Amino acid sequence: MTSASVESPAVVTGGAGAIGSVLVRALLDRQIEVRVIDNFSSGRPELLPTSPPAGRFHLTTADLREPDRYYEQFRGAKALWHLAANPDIRLGVADPTVDLEQGTITSFRVLEAARRFDVPKVYFSSSSTVYGLPKVFPTHEEYGPLEPQSLYGAAKLASEGLFSAYAHCYGIRSYIYRFANIIGPGMGHGVLVDFFDKLRNDPGRLEVLGNGRQAKSYLRTEDCVAGMILAGERASEPVNIFNLGTEDRISVREIAEKVVAAHGGRARIEYAGGDRGWVGDIPQQLLATDRIRALGWKPSSNSAQAVDRTIAELLAGRKVSPAS
Amino acid sequence: MTSASVESPAVVTGGAGAIGSVLVRALLDRQIEVRVIDNFSSGRPELLPTSPPAGRFHLTTADLREPDRYYEQFRGAKALWHLAANPDIRLGVADPTVDLEQGTITSFRVLEAARRFDVPKVYFSSSSTVYGLPKVFPTHEEYGPLEPQSLYGAAKLASEGLFSAYAHCYGIRSYIYRFANIIGPGMGHGVLVDFFDKLRNDPGRLEVLGNGRQAKSYLRTEDCVAGMILAGERASEPVNIFNLGTEDRISVREIAEKVVAAHGGRARIEYAGGDRGWVGDIPQQLLATDRIRALGWKPSSNSAQAVDRTIAELLAGRKVSPAS
Repeated sequence: MTSASVESPAVVTGGAGAIGSVLVRALLDRQIEVRVIDNFSSGRPELLPTSPPAGRFHLTTADLREPDRYYEQFRGAKALWHLAANPDIRLGVADPTVDLEQGTITSFRVLEAARRFDVPKVYFSSSSTVYGLPKVFPTHEEYGPLEPQSLYGAAKLASEGLFSAYAHCYGIRSYIYRFANIIGPGMGHGVLVDFFDKLRNDPGRLEVLGNGRQAKSYLRTEDCVAGMILAGERASEPVNIFNLGTEDRISVREIAEKVVAAHGGRARIEYAGGDRGWVGDIPQQLLATDRIRALGWKPSSNSAQAVDRTIAELLAGRKVSPAS
Repeated sequence: MTSASVESPAVVTGGAGAIGSVLVRALLDRQIEVRVIDNFSSGRPELLPTSPPAGRFHLTTADLREPDRYYEQFRGAKALWHLAANPDIRLGVADPTVDLEQGTITSFRVLEAARRFDVPKVYFSSSSTVYGLPKVFPTHEEYGPLEPQSLYGAAKLASEGLFSAYAHCYGIRSYIYRFANIIGPGMGHGVLVDFFDKLRNDPGRLEVLGNGRQAKSYLRTEDCVAGMILAGERASEPVNIFNLGTEDRISVREIAEKVVAAHGGRARIEYAGGDRGWVGDIPQQLLATDRIRALGWKPSSNSAQAVDRTIAELLAGRKVSPAS
């Protein structure tokens, strides 16, 4: 992987998020000028680099729904990495406007900015949720029909359609990454954070949503980011769609047992029952990753290892920041 | 097909459009109470029934982006038929906000209305454009990846995702119809209308966008509407996706020759060249329709017959209104 082939300057939306901040570091390590736009709705200032290289790091605090506040950051940019979004799938069921506004409309606004300032390449963090409840595992990028089960998944699918249309109508090369469950430092939500929160509130009991048999692929943030950058260097279709995940999966039951063991093994695990954790949950997820592996990508951790590493980091302190 | 099984009252958005007005008549014929919402941006008052049955037809003139102006029409409704949208694919390239607002956001607004008023069934007019440039013909409903080539196609895909999410999150049964090129009386745009317009302006010459080899399936409006109603009666998954088209296709060159012949055969046909008619055009389109045919649907016209019938109607008068 050569540093010269990644585009600079790069705009990173959601650059203060758990995935975005790891991407920001990886781009800075490659000598790229990075322009972060974040509204800190779920991103956190402490995840940003503490001593960024002078002149190569810019932070704009702005909501992406207000283009006038950040459009200038797109001037001269050679790439857009669009990671900003509501990160919590469950929010959308209670308030469907969240994913429409923070997902679909936000994607539209940043694509318009890219179009107006002739940004030639755009990268988008999509999700395995676009597959809905697939009937084939591992699920390939060409799987259909795409029937999202959540407003979050619907917004990811809507955004994918926009990235595709902008590629074909305006010649902006698009990279669409469909993430498995991404875990690592700095996460504000997700099954591991939930379990840690619950055990802090009640060390004797861990309630698990669903029957615990939900089984998914978990990928470490740094492996995810490495895949995004690699595909951007090595794929060059007008629209490039890649799954990003591990080749194994792990059940919620196994994760619960790991978390309880890490806390000393005293808590009783109780299952709420039902085959889904919540409305809109995708109980089974395993992505085919032969497409990105063919480019030379290989994750450093499988799902179980990714969970173990993240549990260790969470134990070491809830506010774990990656080294800057 | 029995009349009792279609839901009443029914809200029809875009009910004054070329397809919507045929649907409105078909629903009225089935003794259904019909509540049309249209802003007449592309719909036309003269397409609505001239003597609708008393008490079973209501018209609300409103823009769907302003829910307060029409939400009450959803009270007590048993079905929503959502046909309102920008009908012209080409508009979106010049102004990408058109399909975001009139497509995606409008779908969201009417789904929210359906959710708030507990409307149990929703029908959506999607499009073959969600398939982008498929590599397989005829193209099946489970084809992937879905890479729309136009903002119009992106908005249809975004809307499909929303209909799917609302089905799974809120139990609203969804019907998604992916239309081939639909033709019939009352159309305000499309290849036939374009050719008639051009020949009226210059009877000696017909310029054809692209090389004329674009070949697509054309379905008559009345066949399309019959398929929508039939699938609503006979399919009952949470999300029901159906292609609607004929089993043959016809080239733009053949259509041009038919139109010129219908005008006396004097015009010279000139091809602008290139394999697409415009940016975002899908030059080849043929949908697999075995899924809806298995329910008992069969169109009355193939593509060539559909074109012939529509040419005859256009010749008889540009402002052809279907019999009320």
